[in-house]
Amino acid sequence: MKYDVAIIGTGPAGLSCALNLKLHNKSVIWFGPGELSGKVGRSEKIANYPGIAMVSGQDLNALFLEQIRDAGLEITDRQVTAITSSRRGFMLQGGNDIYDAKAVLLATGAAAGKGFAGEEALLGSGVSYCATCDGFLYEGKTIAVYCGSKRFEHEVAYLAELAKTVYLFAPYKDPGAFPDNVIICDGRIKEILGEQKAEGLLLEDSSTLEADGVFIIRESVAPATLVRGLELDGPDIVVDRGMRTNKRGVFAAGDCTGRPYQITKATGEGNIAAHSIVEYLAELEKKEA
Amino acid sequence: MKYDVAIIGTGPAGLSCALNLKLHNKSVIWFGPGELSGKVGRSEKIANYPGIAMVSGQDLNALFLEQIRDAGLEITDRQVTAITSSRRGFMLQGGNDIYDAKAVLLATGAAAGKGFAGEEALLGSGVSYCATCDGFLYEGKTIAVYCGSKRFEHEVAYLAELAKTVYLFAPYKDPGAFPDNVIICDGRIKEILGEQKAEGLLLEDSSTLEADGVFIIRESVAPATLVRGLELDGPDIVVDRGMRTNKRGVFAAGDCTGRPYQITKATGEGNIAAHSIVEYLAELEKKEA
Repeated sequence: MKYDVAIIGTGPAGLSCALNLKLHNKSVIWFGPGELSGKVGRSEKIANYPGIAMVSGQDLNALFLEQIRDAGLEITDRQVTAITSSRRGFMLQGGNDIYDAKAVLLATGAAAGKGFAGEEALLGSGVSYCATCDGFLYEGKTIAVYCGSKRFEHEVAYLAELAKTVYLFAPYKDPGAFPDNVIICDGRIKEILGEQKAEGLLLEDSSTLEADGVFIIRESVAPATLVRGLELDGPDIVVDRGMRTNKRGVFAAGDCTGRPYQITKATGEGNIAAHSIVEYLAELEKKEA
Repeated sequence: MKYDVAIIGTGPAGLSCALNLKLHNKSVIWFGPGELSGKVGRSEKIANYPGIAMVSGQDLNALFLEQIRDAGLEITDRQVTAITSSRRGFMLQGGNDIYDAKAVLLATGAAAGKGFAGEEALLGSGVSYCATCDGFLYEGKTIAVYCGSKRFEHEVAYLAELAKTVYLFAPYKDPGAFPDNVIICDGRIKEILGEQKAEGLLLEDSSTLEADGVFIIRESVAPATLVRGLELDGPDIVVDRGMRTNKRGVFAAGDCTGRPYQITKATGEGNIAAHSIVEYLAELEKKEA
């Protein structure tokens, strides 16, 4: 599956970029929650969105969804867990599938910080972001799973089919019902333990938990983990005025580029990014010709 | 008249900034056409404004106007012809009045280029942007007037009351009726002539015209002429990611900062600028305390 552009994130920045790329007849694969940004949806009243006075976040998301449908845009409700450079651009892992794109927009929202201590170092060594990709490695074993949102519980259920025991950390209200081998833990993860390989968790109450592997399933993967070598300033992706990151072909827009965390700022940056991406694709074509 | 912020321009960038400053309880003087952006108004269909699908520019401006009224924002329909630094911030000349502001947002739209050859050099030496300020200097004399828009024709009429002869260059359809001492010229201005002082015009057909003074009345004054020492990149105002220009306390947003010339980019930048301005005002207060 080859596309001109992969957009990660269905918030205002991703939407603004997608609308513009569609107008420019670019093929787009657009990843993210089909219900759009939860952060927008939870806003009670938005008083500063130009043109739509005093709108609730829920109503604004509804307007966005209608516009997405009318524009013929499609959302792929999968989490992208890895982006690697390839000779022809980028390969993105979304669930069990690999998607090819010439350019990538990161519109992943405000960074959730750097993840847990030990997370980045042990990624691929007992730490995984992808149940469908790595679950089979833990058949009959004991794993710990951090599930950041109710919408990923099917991934936990899948892991429970394979593993002997699943220690589940689900920091939201009313986690669903799981098979008996899923033990819901109340503690908070402080660190992922292990030198060469993940060996368990250190919790905030200083207790530890042994595990053969650790799965971390979050709304958004920290961008620096998603794209190796991405330049950050604290938690923010560094971009120039054209929303270009330090990695050629990788662009960023919205909260992931830093404050102010504002819908209008995000749509503005998504618009600029789309224009820079169109320019970038034109350059690529020139080189190939 | 002292304000926290002066906003120059009533297009989408100015609006977005004004909405946010109002929410932050800043006092704002907002200059520009009361009918908002003519460029937006002339757009037949806008397909990429997030949240308002397939809207005409006229309808979008109507939505903006409604929001401005509901937010209790006021527009001062005057052209700002000079901005100078003062000990307490900035002094802005708007018509015959001087306005004080601690910070300035330039949201003046796409630059109309650098003006006519000779314009910047002879400004204040026979070249004026302000009929009400400088008209009296030319009582009984011969002047040339460039009037960029029908909405400034009252300024031409005012000058005709003072001057003996007015050579009028009005590059739009159907200039209005003027007194007999106004001679409407078909030619196009190429250069303003004069060494120490403006002495007349060189037209594109190589003919010349003698005049004691030259008035230039445009929708927007080139930002570099408005604020001395402002850093430009070609016609674009150079800004950082927080929409700060090289002049402390002067911010810019929208088309005047460069491409893409897009409504969504302009609203996004206006939003960012507002937040940077709020931050700047807080710093000023800290210093004063």
